[in-house]
Formats: sequence, C-alpha cells, structure tokens
Amino acid sequence: MFVKLVIFLSLYNVIFISAKYTCKLTNSLKTEIQSYKDIVERIKNAVVEKNAPFRNFTWNELAMFVDKYGSRIAGSENLENSIDFLLDRLKNTYGIRNVHGEEAEVPHWIRGEESAYLIKPRPLKLAILGLGGSVGTDEQGITASVVVVKSFDELRNTSDKVRGKIVVFNEKYVSYGETVQYRSNGASEAGKLGAAAVLIRSIAPFSISSPHTGAQSYSGPRKIPTACISIEDAQLLQRFYDRGIPMQIQLKMGARQLPTAISRNIVSEIPGSEKPDEIVLVSGHIDSWDVGQGAMDDGGGAFISWTSLHILDQLNLQPKRTIRSVLWTAEEEGYWGARSYLKNHLNEIKNLTVVMESDEGTFTPTGLEFYGSEKAACILEEILNLFGPFNATLLQHSSYPVGSDIGLWQDKGVPGVSLGNKNGRYFWYHHSEGDMMTVENPADLDLCTAVWASTAYILADLSVTLPRNIQRFPSQ
Amino acid sequence: MFVKLVIFLSLYNVIFISAKYTCKLTNSLKTEIQSYKDIVERIKNAVVEKNAPFRNFTWNELAMFVDKYGSRIAGSENLENSIDFLLDRLKNTYGIRNVHGEEAEVPHWIRGEESAYLIKPRPLKLAILGLGGSVGTDEQGITASVVVVKSFDELRNTSDKVRGKIVVFNEKYVSYGETVQYRSNGASEAGKLGAAAVLIRSIAPFSISSPHTGAQSYSGPRKIPTACISIEDAQLLQRFYDRGIPMQIQLKMGARQLPTAISRNIVSEIPGSEKPDEIVLVSGHIDSWDVGQGAMDDGGGAFISWTSLHILDQLNLQPKRTIRSVLWTAEEEGYWGARSYLKNHLNEIKNLTVVMESDEGTFTPTGLEFYGSEKAACILEEILNLFGPFNATLLQHSSYPVGSDIGLWQDKGVPGVSLGNKNGRYFWYHHSEGDMMTVENPADLDLCTAVWASTAYILADLSVTLPRNIQRFPSQ
Repeated sequence: MFVKLVIFLSLYNVIFISAKYTCKLTNSLKTEIQSYKDIVERIKNAVVEKNAPFRNFTWNELAMFVDKYGSRIAGSENLENSIDFLLDRLKNTYGIRNVHGEEAEVPHWIRGEESAYLIKPRPLKLAILGLGGSVGTDEQGITASVVVVKSFDELRNTSDKVRGKIVVFNEKYVSYGETVQYRSNGASEAGKLGAAAVLIRSIAPFSISSPHTGAQSYSGPRKIPTACISIEDAQLLQRFYDRGIPMQIQLKMGARQLPTAISRNIVSEIPGSEKPDEIVLVSGHIDSWDVGQGAMDDGGGAFISWTSLHILDQLNLQPKRTIRSVLWTAEEEGYWGARSYLKNHLNEIKNLTVVMESDEGTFTPTGLEFYGSEKAACILEEILNLFGPFNATLLQHSSYPVGSDIGLWQDKGVPGVSLGNKNGRYFWYHHSEGDMMTVENPADLDLCTAVWASTAYILADLSVTLPRNIQRFPSQ
Repeated sequence: MFVKLVIFLSLYNVIFISAKYTCKLTNSLKTEIQSYKDIVERIKNAVVEKNAPFRNFTWNELAMFVDKYGSRIAGSENLENSIDFLLDRLKNTYGIRNVHGEEAEVPHWIRGEESAYLIKPRPLKLAILGLGGSVGTDEQGITASVVVVKSFDELRNTSDKVRGKIVVFNEKYVSYGETVQYRSNGASEAGKLGAAAVLIRSIAPFSISSPHTGAQSYSGPRKIPTACISIEDAQLLQRFYDRGIPMQIQLKMGARQLPTAISRNIVSEIPGSEKPDEIVLVSGHIDSWDVGQGAMDDGGGAFISWTSLHILDQLNLQPKRTIRSVLWTAEEEGYWGARSYLKNHLNEIKNLTVVMESDEGTFTPTGLEFYGSEKAACILEEILNLFGPFNATLLQHSSYPVGSDIGLWQDKGVPGVSLGNKNGRYFWYHHSEGDMMTVENPADLDLCTAVWASTAYILADLSVTLPRNIQRFPSQ
C-alpha cells in the first residue's frame, strides 16, 4: 500500500508524520467508533452551542483562579494555596470524585530583586528575567565588559576573550526545540570558559521588548548568574559589539535556591463502570513560572482537563474505564510532580490506556497530536472524523513523545496524546509577563474542552484499548 | 463621468476616498510625468538593487543614530546632543547644503521614578508609563480604591462613586484616532468628578503586557496624575471590579513639568536649479517619547527625509524647485517645532508646492497618502504609476490632513503627502519600550527611501505645481 509521508514542524520542532496507514480497522470497530457521534453531539450541545450550560465555563473558572492567585511557581506558598483552593472547588463545589492531592518534592527557587544596566557606551536599563535555577550575584552585582556571540561555535572561537566578561548570547530563533539550548546551557558553557555572567536573548520568535524566563541547568561545578534579555536589547548589544564600541553592564540578581518543598499533584476521577482499573489519564500542569498569570502555560491545559471531568459527570457520561485528571506540579523545573507520580504509580503503567496532556496552548483547536503505534493512530484518526463539529479533525502523528510531563510514560510505551491547536503565537507569551488571561479566548477554550472531553470519553469507553507496540522508543 | 468612492480605514481612522477622478491630465503633462521613469530607475538602482551603493544606507544610519542616543524627548539634553550630531553629520560627513538648526521653544516634561502596585485583593506590580504632561504624586504616592469604567458614558453614570478614587479606563480599542480620546482627556474628565488619579488602558490593539505612553492635556484647573497600564492589567482590574472584589492601588509618580527649553528643527536643502524659491518640503520628526529608541516613531520617517536629499545629491539630481528636508522637534507634545517654524516662515506658504511627512511607519511601502485637490490627486496618481518597481503604486486620497506636523500647512491649503506603508502593527510598538530598531527592516527602509526621494524629486521638478483649491478645509 502506498504510504505518503508529510513532515511538519510543530511547536517544539518535533517532526510529525502524517501517513496513509497500512493498518485497516475492522468494520465493526469503525461502526463502534462512529456510534460515538451522539456523544460528541451531546458534549457539543453542553459546551459549545449558544446558550449551552457550560459555555464559557472553562474560561470563567480559569480567569477566577488565575486572577485570584496569579503566577504559581514551584515551592511557593502561593502555589500551595492555589492547590488547596482547587482541591476544595473540585470536591465541594463540583462534587468530582476521588479528589485528592498527591505529594511531591519540588525545587524552590526565588528570583529576588534583579536588574541589569548598560553603563557604557550609554546608560540604559535592560529588561531582564533571571532564569530558573540561576545563582544570584552579591549585593554589589557584577560589573563587567561584554562579549556578544551568536552561537556556541562563536563562543568557542572567542574563548580567549570570555574570562571575567558578561557573555551575551544573541542566537537566532529557529524553533523553540532547537534554540532553547542557549537558555538551558548558555551559563554552563560560558561558565566553563571563565565568564562572569551570561545574558541570553529570550527564546521567542517575536517581542515587544519582553524578556522570557525558563529553566536552565548547570552542568559543571562553576555556577554563574544568568538571565534572559529581550530580543531588541540583544540585537542592540550585538550592533554595539559589531561596531567595536566597548560596553559595560552591571548585573544584580537576588536569585536563590531554597531547600526543596512539598507540593501536590491534583488528582480527580470519573471511575470506570466496567474496567475501573484501566485508566485514561488527562492532564496539564498547575504550576507556572513567577511572571504573568500562568493562564496559557499551563492554566488552559490544566483547566480543560478537570472541566472535562466535571462536564462528563454532569452529562452522566460514565465510560467503561476510569478517566483520571492529574494537574501536575513543578512541571517547569523538569516534571518534578510527574516524576514523583510515576514512581508512586509504577504498577499502574500496564493499565494506562493513554496519557493525555495539554501543555502547548489552548488556542483554536485543530485536533490531536499523537505518539504511538500506527494501529493506535488509525483508531485516533477514526475518532477525529467525529470532530467535524469542532473543526478539529487533524491528527499529527509525532515521531517523538508529545506533551511535556507525559513524556515519562511515553518513554515506557504508553501512547501519548496532546491537544493540537493554532498555537503559532504560543512563544510570543510563553514564560513572560504576557502570559495573562488576555491570551485565552472563551470560545476557543470551549472548543478545546469539548475536544478534550470527547477524546477522553471515547478512549475510556471503546471496546478496544489503544495498541502499544511502538517501534521507536527514545528510552525504556 | 462615473465617480466611484471606496472608503478605507487608515492608520488614524481617517477616511480615504479613492476615486475615479473627473479631472483629466493633458497628454503633454502625462508624457512629461512618464518621462521620469528613467529617474525612478536611477534611484532604484542606487538604493534598492542588490549591490546598490545606498542599499541599507538609511537603516545603517538610523541604527547608528538611535543606538547612540536612544530615546529623545523634547527638552532633554540628549535630544539636543543628537541634533548636534546629526547637524554635523549631514553637513560635514555628507556635504548636504544649507544644513542648519532653527530654534523652537519646547516643553520639558520628565517622567521621574514611577510605580503602581495593586495592594488589594493581592499584591501585584502593574506595568505603567506615566503620560506626557502629567503631574506627579508626592513621595508617599496615592493609595486609593479603584473604580473601573469602559467609557466616558460609564464614567458619567458612576460619577457619584469617583471622588477620591483611582479611576481605571478599560476602553475598547477601536482605532487610534477614536480611542486616543481616553488618553488625551481621561485625567481631565475624571479629575472634574474628584478622582485622585487615572490609569488608562494603553491605546493599542495588541500587547505583550506592554504599556504605551503619549500626550495628555488638562482642560480644567484640577490636575491629577495619570498613566497608562497594559491591556492585560486593565482587563484584570475590570474582572475584579465586575466580580465586586474591592481593589486598592498605590500609585507613585515623580513626573514634573520643567521650564520650557530651546530645541531645534533640523533643516537641509537641495537648492532648486530654476525656481529656488519654490519649495517641496519633506519631513519627519526627530524627537520621540522617552521609551524605546524612537526608531519607528519617528526615526524612520525623519531619516528617509534626509537620506533622500543625500542620495539625490549623490546622483546629481537637482530639480527645478528646492527640496527642503525638515526634521521637526517636539512633535510628540503637539507640533512645537512645526508651529514655531510655521510662524517664522509664514511668507513662504505661498511658495510651498507640497508638504510631505512620514510619521506613520516605514514598513513595506504601498504608495502615498494625500490631502488636497482632485486635480493634484490626478497628478499624484500619474506619478505613482511610475512606482511599479517599488510595488508602491497606491494613492490613498484622504478627506483629512495627512502626516502629523504638516497638518498645520494643510489647514492653510498646502497639499499634503504622507508615506503609505503596511503599518498594521504600528500601534503595537508606538510610544512603548518596543519602539526599537528591531521594528525597522533594511529592505523596507530602502524602498521607503526610494519612494520618498522619487516623489520629492518629481514634484520639485515638474513643469506644473500641484493645484491647491481644496474644497474642505478644517480651518484656515
């Protein structure tokens, strides 16, 4: 059979394979899947239609929550307060079942006061955001001259000039997946060459002088302060450097790593009617960076996960398998909540039908992203045929795990599903002060909720489970 | 003859009338205009083509200038230093003729330190930019509860609640021309009702938590502090208000109006070969607000004006009339430089063939905007037919004066021309920290320069002057 491969570049620069699959579903399975048309219609009527009882429900809940708590960084009292609030709301306001927190150890990094001033050739306050995990400076800060490089190659070629300097990375944005290496490893690489501190052009395709934070990690023993600056300022410093104009920057950062803290993943369920031990896991993460409101990253993804459960409950839609919603904690620092959960639920891996996570935006939905076997992709394709009413029928079959936290399970063979959506502007706001409720659109969130709830319900109710046998595991 | 009217919405919400004009150019005038094809070709070869001697010239000059001086607010020493630099560069580096400064009295407002904190219902630093001309607070600042309104109508309907409060205007952005009234008059209107201070949603269609400054004026005796906040924060405050959640904000502003200062318009010329007393005036403004670099508003417009002169000089293109470049000072506070110039050059009005100004962006050019008589529009249309090589042949015939400073002359009957360009994102950056060199594209600036130089040259060289007899003058 003819197989056509189409390669997309996705949000994280993952390659998607859209194929005419060689598998063929049995007629009875096709008929079974098609029979969920009425369920999709009921969900649509409940969420999307004018005067639907749950129209704007996700947006209103999310707005109320992120307005009340704002950003929610791992280790903070504010995150824990927001988790207490949400546990109470899911359990007592909405009566969702099996609502509880599951503890996880999480890092606790605090930003403190921070500033960067260009001193030479002229005074200019630079907009910065220190990077998660960065060490701070002492109170006097670091005042040093500046070396600008566009790449790690340029850094190596200029390695004799770096000692004692503030290194500025003005890397070109190619894609998040490719370009984020400068944020992740910039301080380590420049630190090895004796740099005093590192400023990195924000990992974003567009900017209105807006810096973006994010995680970074030290790979060597030498830890130097590191922050992101705006695209505009990085280009300004590049131009000064190219003209041979000496620059001096004063950097002050109050960043500190505190002892680890205890946070919680927020778990809730619709218990399965026939196979309660088999689980469809739907998720997003409840933590955020300490800027903006964490409305997009990942308020939207976390909220469509629990509102899906509530809406299915209210429609008396109880599937055969259990649908479990997990709102992960401390995703931003490297899946701390998910890793803890994985360790405590190892025995459940065999019972996981699918792991779903929405952490790539909740803009206008387009369909689903998927990592797993071709046979499973065929089933999802058939399910997506039902989503015409949501205008979200596209399957993007990825050659790498999708989502963020749920990669841990996909590495172990569990099929992974992420929400496909028109997230072309995702990285305009990501990890910046711009990640505010303004980014989220009520009608889009309704559509995302409807797609998410429909997918979870059908996968939890089907007579067959998604076949595993993935051919390319990154690790086992 | 059939006349078709097409109405556009432009940058400032001005209505453009694109008409099939009833006027007919004589064949000899048509032929004459068409004969400038070679001139346009020479300019194109000098500026736009690969390896053209002036390719990237405008961008490089502008970048060097705005990087060196940054923002240039009226009254500041920095603006005067930048004017000294540019006078020297035009005269001594490039040998442009009749380079000199012409003095003008300008206001001198300084921002000082400023901050706004939401205190209740939860602590949050708001991003603000005080508005030009605003008074400041005392050192303790103003701490008050908050009333949010969406319009002046809502303000009037809630006038009994406003006394002693901080009023937040969360007006919807319709167009700059329509919506800017809230920035201009918000403090005056709320001040009359006893408000303590006013925060206004930035006048912008899009934001990444980026506040925008701009001019405002007090119409009554009571002057209260006023600043713009981001769209995102305005919407956040609106949601709190709609939920009935009490809010308190602490506003501190160090803004002060200092005594007026002396600044200068930067004048330079290509003297006309046959009619040196007749003048084609090309312009932009050299000042900016005190944020970003003033690269877009109006670095680009100012620079294409003087580089046009230099490039025509270098091509030995001396037209019959004089082309005079004027870079206005203190446009942002209300055309102070232009008003002073008008007063000192009243006797020249009769000799002004046309006033040109680019102050609406130097993105990809589309053609020309025009205010004036139908006969003059016919001539411009014929000239624009030559600009196919720049893909910039569109005439937008406005029913109101075009440009900014040059409105003063259009009110007196002088035809006005502004640069048409794809400025759909202009107000994303305008008066914000995002007005940086990153906004400007070298190839677009080349095209803008070529369109600007070609237009100025042809209008200065034609056997006929643009007919005046405008039918609708806003004032005389």
